[in-house]
Amino acid sequence: MIKSRAAVAFEAGKPLEIVEVDVAPPKAGEVLVRIVATGVCHTDAFTLSGDDPEGVFPAILGHEGGGIVEAVGEGVTSLAVGDHVIPLYTAECRECKFCKSGKTNLCSSVRETQGKGLMPDGTTRFSYQGKPIYHYMGCSTFSEYTVLPEVSLAKIQPEAPLEEVCLLGCGVTTGIGAVLNTAKVEAGSSVAIFGLGGIGLAAIIGAKMAGASRIIAVDINPDKFDKARELGATEFVNPKDHEQPIQQVIVEMTDGGVDYSFECVGNVNLMRAALECCHKGWGESTIIGVAGAGQEISTRPFQLVTGRVWRGSAFGGVKGRTELPGYVEKAQKGEIPLNAFITHTMGLEDINKAFDLMHEGKSIRSVIHF
Amino acid sequence: MIKSRAAVAFEAGKPLEIVEVDVAPPKAGEVLVRIVATGVCHTDAFTLSGDDPEGVFPAILGHEGGGIVEAVGEGVTSLAVGDHVIPLYTAECRECKFCKSGKTNLCSSVRETQGKGLMPDGTTRFSYQGKPIYHYMGCSTFSEYTVLPEVSLAKIQPEAPLEEVCLLGCGVTTGIGAVLNTAKVEAGSSVAIFGLGGIGLAAIIGAKMAGASRIIAVDINPDKFDKARELGATEFVNPKDHEQPIQQVIVEMTDGGVDYSFECVGNVNLMRAALECCHKGWGESTIIGVAGAGQEISTRPFQLVTGRVWRGSAFGGVKGRTELPGYVEKAQKGEIPLNAFITHTMGLEDINKAFDLMHEGKSIRSVIHF
Repeated sequence: MIKSRAAVAFEAGKPLEIVEVDVAPPKAGEVLVRIVATGVCHTDAFTLSGDDPEGVFPAILGHEGGGIVEAVGEGVTSLAVGDHVIPLYTAECRECKFCKSGKTNLCSSVRETQGKGLMPDGTTRFSYQGKPIYHYMGCSTFSEYTVLPEVSLAKIQPEAPLEEVCLLGCGVTTGIGAVLNTAKVEAGSSVAIFGLGGIGLAAIIGAKMAGASRIIAVDINPDKFDKARELGATEFVNPKDHEQPIQQVIVEMTDGGVDYSFECVGNVNLMRAALECCHKGWGESTIIGVAGAGQEISTRPFQLVTGRVWRGSAFGGVKGRTELPGYVEKAQKGEIPLNAFITHTMGLEDINKAFDLMHEGKSIRSVIHF
Repeated sequence: MIKSRAAVAFEAGKPLEIVEVDVAPPKAGEVLVRIVATGVCHTDAFTLSGDDPEGVFPAILGHEGGGIVEAVGEGVTSLAVGDHVIPLYTAECRECKFCKSGKTNLCSSVRETQGKGLMPDGTTRFSYQGKPIYHYMGCSTFSEYTVLPEVSLAKIQPEAPLEEVCLLGCGVTTGIGAVLNTAKVEAGSSVAIFGLGGIGLAAIIGAKMAGASRIIAVDINPDKFDKARELGATEFVNPKDHEQPIQQVIVEMTDGGVDYSFECVGNVNLMRAALECCHKGWGESTIIGVAGAGQEISTRPFQLVTGRVWRGSAFGGVKGRTELPGYVEKAQKGEIPLNAFITHTMGLEDINKAFDLMHEGKSIRSVIHF
């Protein structure tokens, strides 16, 4: 057992509490990681709010981290003490039906227990005053020390700054990957991106990397357009400036619709607009945002019969252990400007401020330095 | 002006009337065709019922025909008198943005006027007692003589029997093309086909051509299973035999869902079931059926975010002028058993009986011989 500073979500809807938790040593196939930095993502806030039907409490949230291997359990072969790692909420075991399909990154190896806040053996490694604390998304990066399955850790280049590349553990990779891996945007395409939070901005970077000729950024907060322009957006639409439905505005701007669109908010009405602003015959819309529990998307089937395609993306379709080192390399070369996302940094003791900044729309990403 | 026997839909909801109409000669870019045979399709019945918001009356319905060129208008270069042709409700001009995209068969060249029951110059070639009769889907194959734009005719091999290959003008090509062109089913895949009418049966043929390992046929009328088996279906599900939702039954049968599914009915609830019976991570569902006006499809976005893809297909994604000769060749070789679809043949004077047989579920296709 070691002691670890952690921000614990004891109850839904309450601020996190900074306490010292107990962390049990890694079991077979598990790895103890010292987290150096972690981003704070909307998904953490969603679960903390109590709206996430899968949310269990008390838990240690956080899933966008960077750290260093502190100890390995029995049978761990791909990692050693001192390795730099990014925790993965989408594992990559390379052995399950999903990993072997070559068609998806949705590894099933630890899925069932992870969804319940447990390690694969059905127990937790965290406790506080003798009572168990649940894991979160298999990561729990809001603790200085955390335990993960070996298959849930991407080994990365030790020279990369963990305070920046931690963002590749979720939002930035999700947005870029959705464009490059899921939609496979081609050079010269027109692209519309709905929502200019961290994921939407990352999707803009992805669209620029793909060589898109038009990158239309859509948000109801025009303060976000400057950053979007800096990252590569070429046109800007504020739905509040138009009386027509936003899909119609975009169809008219683009002589029939865009080739690709991305929903980066989690709003089911926007998901419909994103589909319907696509060009007849070939336009493809990718849902990245996570909608509230029980919400549904809808459209007329004629939209699909006339050639539009509706798909979705989780963690950008990226296989973490295999592909994250490539993302880190691109970040190191400046092709992925991670600094553009980091609007605030703070110590763990100020983590509730990071949530406040996010709710107030004042931050893109706050990064916690341990 | 020539005289032509035709079955005219004078009013929605009334039987067709067999009368002698006047047919004006083809104008520039147009072709006069003598129809030798035509299938009767559900879409004709849908429009005749009055439920089709685009339906205009009086009109000459029919869009699944085979014929011989009788005369060509000025400037027609790709067709000559005596050529055997299949009328196309999806034209192929090879010059519009859609044709040039290489991504879709939805040619826009004659779309606007066709939807209004008119020839591209905004007038009709049919009249009865001096009053205009509208065209239908750009084809109007329920007339012995009909006029079409040159771009709406596929020239085919003269040795092919028009009484059979007429079915390649709609249903059979739509079902096969949706599997091969739109979904691009791979060898070894599992496939579920919802609805065993003409299109569903054709989709089974397509799945067999693609080398699918499991072809699950779904219909509430078990009388249709024999024909489905004959054409290649390997398993049969009657939703009435199960208390669970049909998507759940199929997911359990297939250890997680099928690789590809096809909705061949036009029922929005079935479209949802077809999507949700697809395998997480890669399952793709294609909508072929045409839903009633204003109806909508819906699902939880989580279905897409976890890797399912929702798409649709019109005329099987087939470019008629370019690809139909290949379909005719496959029919000639026996790879597409058109005879299996033809349950009834009759003269034009009995065409209302063809509609009755269809409504009673007794026919797959009735073919009218002129």
